[in-house]
Amino acid sequence: MAPTKKVGILGATGTVGQRFILLLAEHPVFTIHALGASPRSAGKAYKDAVRWKQSRPIPENVAQITVKPCEAELFKDCDVVFSGLDADIAGDVEMAMLKQNIAVFSNAKNYRRDPTVPLIVPTVNSDHFDLIAHQRKLNNLSKGFLITNANCSTTGLVVPLKALQDAFGPMSHILVNTQQAISGAGYPGVPSLDILDNVVPHIGGEEEKMEWEVGKILGDLASDKESLIHLPETTVSATCTRVPVLDGHLESVSVKFANGAPSVEQVYEVLEKYTSDAEKMGCHSAPQKPIVVTYDADRPQPRLDRENLKGQAVTVGRVRKCPVLDIKFVLLVHNTVLGAAGSSVLNAEIAVAKGLI
Amino acid sequence: MAPTKKVGILGATGTVGQRFILLLAEHPVFTIHALGASPRSAGKAYKDAVRWKQSRPIPENVAQITVKPCEAELFKDCDVVFSGLDADIAGDVEMAMLKQNIAVFSNAKNYRRDPTVPLIVPTVNSDHFDLIAHQRKLNNLSKGFLITNANCSTTGLVVPLKALQDAFGPMSHILVNTQQAISGAGYPGVPSLDILDNVVPHIGGEEEKMEWEVGKILGDLASDKESLIHLPETTVSATCTRVPVLDGHLESVSVKFANGAPSVEQVYEVLEKYTSDAEKMGCHSAPQKPIVVTYDADRPQPRLDRENLKGQAVTVGRVRKCPVLDIKFVLLVHNTVLGAAGSSVLNAEIAVAKGLI
Amino acid sequence: MAPTKKVGILGATGTVGQRFILLLAEHPVFTIHALGASPRSAGKAYKDAVRWKQSRPIPENVAQITVKPCEAELFKDCDVVFSGLDADIAGDVEMAMLKQNIAVFSNAKNYRRDPTVPLIVPTVNSDHFDLIAHQRKLNNLSKGFLITNANCSTTGLVVPLKALQDAFGPMSHILVNTQQAISGAGYPGVPSLDILDNVVPHIGGEEEKMEWEVGKILGDLASDKESLIHLPETTVSATCTRVPVLDGHLESVSVKFANGAPSVEQVYEVLEKYTSDAEKMGCHSAPQKPIVVTYDADRPQPRLDRENLKGQAVTVGRVRKCPVLDIKFVLLVHNTVLGAAGSSVLNAEIAVAKGLI
Amino acid sequence: MAPTKKVGILGATGTVGQRFILLLAEHPVFTIHALGASPRSAGKAYKDAVRWKQSRPIPENVAQITVKPCEAELFKDCDVVFSGLDADIAGDVEMAMLKQNIAVFSNAKNYRRDPTVPLIVPTVNSDHFDLIAHQRKLNNLSKGFLITNANCSTTGLVVPLKALQDAFGPMSHILVNTQQAISGAGYPGVPSLDILDNVVPHIGGEEEKMEWEVGKILGDLASDKESLIHLPETTVSATCTRVPVLDGHLESVSVKFANGAPSVEQVYEVLEKYTSDAEKMGCHSAPQKPIVVTYDADRPQPRLDRENLKGQAVTVGRVRKCPVLDIKFVLLVHNTVLGAAGSSVLNAEIAVAKGLI
Repeated sequence: MAPTKKVGILGATGTVGQRFILLLAEHPVFTIHALGASPRSAGKAYKDAVRWKQSRPIPENVAQITVKPCEAELFKDCDVVFSGLDADIAGDVEMAMLKQNIAVFSNAKNYRRDPTVPLIVPTVNSDHFDLIAHQRKLNNLSKGFLITNANCSTTGLVVPLKALQDAFGPMSHILVNTQQAISGAGYPGVPSLDILDNVVPHIGGEEEKMEWEVGKILGDLASDKESLIHLPETTVSATCTRVPVLDGHLESVSVKFANGAPSVEQVYEVLEKYTSDAEKMGCHSAPQKPIVVTYDADRPQPRLDRENLKGQAVTVGRVRKCPVLDIKFVLLVHNTVLGAAGSSVLNAEIAVAKGLI
Repeated sequence: MAPTKKVGILGATGTVGQRFILLLAEHPVFTIHALGASPRSAGKAYKDAVRWKQSRPIPENVAQITVKPCEAELFKDCDVVFSGLDADIAGDVEMAMLKQNIAVFSNAKNYRRDPTVPLIVPTVNSDHFDLIAHQRKLNNLSKGFLITNANCSTTGLVVPLKALQDAFGPMSHILVNTQQAISGAGYPGVPSLDILDNVVPHIGGEEEKMEWEVGKILGDLASDKESLIHLPETTVSATCTRVPVLDGHLESVSVKFANGAPSVEQVYEVLEKYTSDAEKMGCHSAPQKPIVVTYDADRPQPRLDRENLKGQAVTVGRVRKCPVLDIKFVLLVHNTVLGAAGSSVLNAEIAVAKGLI
Repeated sequence: MAPTKKVGILGATGTVGQRFILLLAEHPVFTIHALGASPRSAGKAYKDAVRWKQSRPIPENVAQITVKPCEAELFKDCDVVFSGLDADIAGDVEMAMLKQNIAVFSNAKNYRRDPTVPLIVPTVNSDHFDLIAHQRKLNNLSKGFLITNANCSTTGLVVPLKALQDAFGPMSHILVNTQQAISGAGYPGVPSLDILDNVVPHIGGEEEKMEWEVGKILGDLASDKESLIHLPETTVSATCTRVPVLDGHLESVSVKFANGAPSVEQVYEVLEKYTSDAEKMGCHSAPQKPIVVTYDADRPQPRLDRENLKGQAVTVGRVRKCPVLDIKFVLLVHNTVLGAAGSSVLNAEIAVAKGLI
Repeated sequence: MAPTKKVGILGATGTVGQRFILLLAEHPVFTIHALGASPRSAGKAYKDAVRWKQSRPIPENVAQITVKPCEAELFKDCDVVFSGLDADIAGDVEMAMLKQNIAVFSNAKNYRRDPTVPLIVPTVNSDHFDLIAHQRKLNNLSKGFLITNANCSTTGLVVPLKALQDAFGPMSHILVNTQQAISGAGYPGVPSLDILDNVVPHIGGEEEKMEWEVGKILGDLASDKESLIHLPETTVSATCTRVPVLDGHLESVSVKFANGAPSVEQVYEVLEKYTSDAEKMGCHSAPQKPIVVTYDADRPQPRLDRENLKGQAVTVGRVRKCPVLDIKFVLLVHNTVLGAAGSSVLNAEIAVAKGLI
């Protein structure tokens, strides 16, 4: 069966855009129909516009597509637009696409704090799609809508937290330290002189994003389905660092539960058993299970675990008692797959399954 | 004035031993008199026994010294012995040296938990040297004694913690995440296949050491000077990871104070003003000040800050409110200088200044 | 159709052994029947014996196989044995396997210089299999035989050299500089302290291997099919270095032709058109073509090109006039795929196609 | 004695500029008088204008200097100007400085091929300073003049070549492969995504520079001292690659001599005994000897040898017979010290010693 939904990719020449192309090139539902990039790239064949940095080659059916400027008029025959645009232009472009009645899936931060825009990690809070009806009404749209991805580090964090919250009730305190891959900064991104034989203990705006986004994602949709309720009593403290790793963000997490601490064994069991609607609905890009649990003392590791379940799962290990809070563990998320383009694609598949596209 | 104290170095061919040699080769007080290593190296000239991995060459006055086996009898004309031995043999060898009435400065973990052995970070708790009189009495020694260094990560941590404890009273909770350099594992140590494009979220025994050692170092000497009082109400939670960095351990720290939180400005002021007895006594290897404070948003960094004050200072930055505990900050310690050989040498200088050697 | 040929893997827990397992786990012709490793591993389930360092997990049908010691008696029901053994034991073990009448494919250097043993790079000199009849006669064997792989760096080099030799006649001089990945040294292999922020300009025995092996591989089988004729008039000069790259050996090559220099365009054309018997025979692991030609000024690169055609092709670029010799170019070979296990597997497939197994 | 010569540094905020500042901050002859950078930096205190990337801190007497735009008028009270400018603006700015009658030492490529401008590696061809009288006459200058450094890779290469040429006569063929550090590309320079776990086999324009510059540097000054005679019969072939190393270019070199090959022992002896005028004249920055010879099989290595003799010496090892040319060896040069700022400073010291400044 040929794919039937036409998709456009905005920011198609960037690192997130390149991942979109790899994920969508042979997709059963979506077909790449249009590629948008900066005016400098517009008019060129994709293969000539891009500095391709993936270890797999440019898909042949994409290489010759002529890149367009990111003007909404030019994408109006797309059913879906995936945006890997930078925040400095994502706001206007994505809004213009939305007003063309297109389903927009954004990786940028611009609309994450908008109360009418769901912030969805596909294996965590796909129920937030139910806000779309209200969003459409507000914007007077028949089929378009706007969904945002979470920040890549937030994405990895909320998957096991959701499993724990479902099982053991709310967490009062979450303390997280990240060690993030260079691909998260795009290309050219991090200068090699800054990161070889080094760690940089700061990523602009990242800690603030993590500390805020967790509360929106793990919060509830109001019963009238017209608003999202930020987690009221959960405090998050984040420290974010950059390490000389190509792909894969490692996070060391400590949590305290409002209603008492589970045992380490209980936590492992809950992580093992966690499932999400994405795989139940049979979405093409859904991982077999949202969490891969590892019991090896020195895992997860970015190089060895980032490709687990094609990069759509979060790998969790080293669960143990935290002497300061209750439980601590280490997680790994592939920052450009589940942490970026992979989430968007899976979100779009969920939207198709829910009849929204 | 020629140096007058004869020193022996045990484990002289290892990475810590090599650092001892660089630090002692032109020392005003100590002169390298004997080098000890494994039976395999014994009998060879040092330059032929060692796989030298330092960027500065082997000091000429050391290259030709004949390496001895680590037998106490062979070191009895040394005033001081510095030990960079591995834990599996350090216990017996260091005890034998002590019984020869030698002043022994150990980097190994074996005697750190011994209640009669001070665990001294030179810019933190040099007052614990006052336990020596009691130690000597117990062992029936006239001039020998045994002092241990802290673990390299603990060493970096306790310097700013001591400043904070002195100013703001005890801390109830300390949560630390480390990103540790490969040199901490010695040579050959970490295989390159394990660490290139990777982070390893586990270092055997390291978290346990950090969680315990802090309490001994920051605790008080009893008023009778016959015992050390472990911090009674401070809980430490550590997560230790290995990163592809040559030298310099980075630590991200959150603390909660028993008596209420200071402001960020107060913390910076206290860190800036912190002094230790080591520099007041004019010790040769004492840093100008124990803490270098940085206000740049992306510092400290291992490659740029590890050599601050010749590696004997701890660099601290990114002080900010912690939403979960009270205050968080990032520190950097040179793991093979202050974190290992540099502490031992400075401890020995303090001991000379106190008339113990 | 189920795979029918039973294979054993010697040195199954090593880095080459792990690659064999990935390549053979779902093979249409070969089925993994036995795993051999050191006495320390023997008796354990494979998953418990191995320190698995691949980014793909251990295949499920292999994880539970009980590892055996490398005793020929225990492998006698195997049709084929692949050996990833170290040279210090490969000699005796492989000979014992051969005497059990097994087809042995070796990655070790021990028999490469044996005049009765073909040294085969599958996309270069599969015609040397015709020496097997003579080898069997000498050893009085009905079905067993012994084939060796070339050194990983030699393997990458001879593929384009063969194309050039076929088209332009013999080369009188070949000068090659390699930049070799750390995986080539096995595990634990290269200590990280030796290679981070560094290059090591020496790999023991590697230059000698390259300078000799080229002449055997590119030489002819004698018309009586009882001996191999080493290239008589080709001189090779190699310099081999180790770089901080996980997989993929880069080689910079200059060549001089005995009969005059072709143009750059001619060289590109010849490289593009080169084919080998492996793909013509339809072997499962044969690359679509033996050489991938790149015209980008800054390619090939290890990280971006090592997976080209699943690691079984050599990527060649930067062909240009050499002011000193005639032509220079840069090539990349995946050292643990085509450069090791991948060659052995493809050689075995060729042997099956030729009716030797 | 206080330093008496006032110097300006152009491109002071760049990576070469930062090295100039470290080399000149406590210089016995030169005192930093003016700093020039882009209009964006002009008007700021140096510490606020620069993104300092050195492991030693900004010298205190430099941190507060106000940066100027690179206008010649503003530097006219300088005796010497050191230029670390990029090639796109170096041409005009350096010429304007020269016309102000200032002694200009350039690191840019712009005037290297100018027949009236010496291209000087201080430990190789300081006799080319004798062209200055002619250059001044042509430009009608009383004290100003213009000297250029060689390319960093060329610089490392010509030091041992000069020793060999002096001893064994001209070389007919030189074939060199470089593995160059990322600091050679400046800041931000090489993106980390391009070089982590990778090698890039191309550096724009580098091979052409090496192949041409060697002939100018190793050529003779004409007897009338009015021109330089390019080496007539030496062919150079270069392949240049970028590796994940911070500082230090490694080069693998093969040479053929016009008058017959020396033995390996003769080469070692000549390299050991080589001296230059720079150290004989007692220049402050001259290395004790221009070449450090290493006999270890796996040296030189960037991380261990780049600081040899403060980065002003070239380290040479692995001398052996080349089966294709005559002799091959490996060298290491610190690309931002001797390969850039260090050459300029030493050249200026030579000019002072020769009475030219």
